[in-house]
Amino acid sequence: MILTVTLNTALDITYRVPSLRPHASHRVTEVTERPGGKGLNVARVLAALGHSVTVTGFAGGGTGRALQETLTTVPGINDALIPVAGAPRRTVAVVDTATGDTTQLNEPGPVIAPAEWSAFLEAYEDLLRSSSAVALCGSLPPGVPVGAYAHLVRAARAASVPVLLDTSGEPLRRGIAARPDFVKPNADELAELTGSHEPVQATRDVRRRGARAVVASLGAEGLLAVAPEGHWRATPPGRVTGNPTGAGDSAVAGLLSGLVEHLPWPDRLARAAALSAATVRAPVAGEFDRAAYEELLPRVAVTERATAA
Amino acid sequence: MILTVTLNTALDITYRVPSLRPHASHRVTEVTERPGGKGLNVARVLAALGHSVTVTGFAGGGTGRALQETLTTVPGINDALIPVAGAPRRTVAVVDTATGDTTQLNEPGPVIAPAEWSAFLEAYEDLLRSSSAVALCGSLPPGVPVGAYAHLVRAARAASVPVLLDTSGEPLRRGIAARPDFVKPNADELAELTGSHEPVQATRDVRRRGARAVVASLGAEGLLAVAPEGHWRATPPGRVTGNPTGAGDSAVAGLLSGLVEHLPWPDRLARAAALSAATVRAPVAGEFDRAAYEELLPRVAVTERATAA
Repeated sequence: MILTVTLNTALDITYRVPSLRPHASHRVTEVTERPGGKGLNVARVLAALGHSVTVTGFAGGGTGRALQETLTTVPGINDALIPVAGAPRRTVAVVDTATGDTTQLNEPGPVIAPAEWSAFLEAYEDLLRSSSAVALCGSLPPGVPVGAYAHLVRAARAASVPVLLDTSGEPLRRGIAARPDFVKPNADELAELTGSHEPVQATRDVRRRGARAVVASLGAEGLLAVAPEGHWRATPPGRVTGNPTGAGDSAVAGLLSGLVEHLPWPDRLARAAALSAATVRAPVAGEFDRAAYEELLPRVAVTERATAA
Repeated sequence: MILTVTLNTALDITYRVPSLRPHASHRVTEVTERPGGKGLNVARVLAALGHSVTVTGFAGGGTGRALQETLTTVPGINDALIPVAGAPRRTVAVVDTATGDTTQLNEPGPVIAPAEWSAFLEAYEDLLRSSSAVALCGSLPPGVPVGAYAHLVRAARAASVPVLLDTSGEPLRRGIAARPDFVKPNADELAELTGSHEPVQATRDVRRRGARAVVASLGAEGLLAVAPEGHWRATPPGRVTGNPTGAGDSAVAGLLSGLVEHLPWPDRLARAAALSAATVRAPVAGEFDRAAYEELLPRVAVTERATAA
């Protein structure tokens, strides 16, 4: 199975209200709850593609239970979240049904105690034994050491499990130095890490810092991949409009599923780019539109580039 | 012990944000959770007054568990909430720390299945056996019959347990016809029920409809009580400014505690009016300020009125 790690899990709540007016009282007409956090998004897409996925991270309190209840509704996901004292953060998206606009309220994550972090590490090393690949996704909650991902990357490498890292800031910088097989920065993360706004140059810099392969997600411009096996660009057809939430997570799912299916790089990238575009197009934020995916997949242009490293 | 019934329990969540801007994304700087719903508010005040209180109603899902966790932090409250499939509604108060203004988002209640309502009725009749008084508080969630309070009033009377009803609309109208010992309408509820905006006349009308005693809460004008034993007005000193949320619930706690302590009517009313004013004054919505309560109590003016029924 594929393992996804979400240290800062979330319960994503969407409220629909007729019209949001500050300082007024509103009757919420519709409430929906979804599992949240980048690794859980990746897991849902992997499960939808027919892969067996195990999710780990933290879940405590009533919100943790609510989050775990939402996971039971997704076939193919095995819940290996670690019980802790603190509850996952809630994110509340308030959709104004009159205008379609969304107002977002994001709680801070729970504080993870040292003993909880140790319990997680032990469970993670156990899970690696039966994993074909692992994705380390998203931000760190308070209490988790900033070098957490570096530690998790090294443990995956020691267990010979291919590891993909998708985070930002200092946890990304330290994680890359531990030599992950793949990193998937977006344009902002690339620029923050390397100081360069030129993706090709920045991507090469990330490889020099320790990542074996880098797949940069560049929004409408698709994906840029720099790996020992070659350099590619994967570009979806036309301009895709919609909500980009979760597009990067769908790309990660595309890359990992292609990896464990032993697809060649161009096919992995076409899948990742098509899933990403089909997520932007989907009416529900973070879901992918399967019909759009199937329609887009054969139309993604993957071009190989000269590898002047 | 005193029993409080909250059929539409809630988890009251407060978010503090630096400044609420529609269609923007906000980092919540502080999250607090409290048990919500009128009967749970009454119970917290009764517990703070040193009474043993049991709370019943419904609690399901992750939000139910979170609600029950908040109850464990209140000493003196015994949790007899009934497990159901649906989760209690959440209410989210978004406080703009720049202006102090609050934007309120209220979820709808869970749908209660007929079997869940039957299970509640059975548990309620069991709890009545050890109750010295019962308060029936607040709105009905979907699925609970509109005559629910009438049924619960009759069961309390059959068990010889004094019963107070505090609700509104058709459930109040039907509940009064079942002859509760006390009802505590506010000015709006009185007017809606009787069509009269004249509190003395409206209060007498409510007695004619079946209530043994009526205590109307009239905001800054205090309380108006019409009972077989006499007619009183209880008025707090001066103008109390603050947040009126929960003031009516504190009045209910004052009346019930005074009843089970066998206080004469004027003392019960003074306590109810002082608790109510001390709740308006408290910095946290729905809490009462104990120092303010003790300072106000001897200064509430209780005047008896001619009983021209």
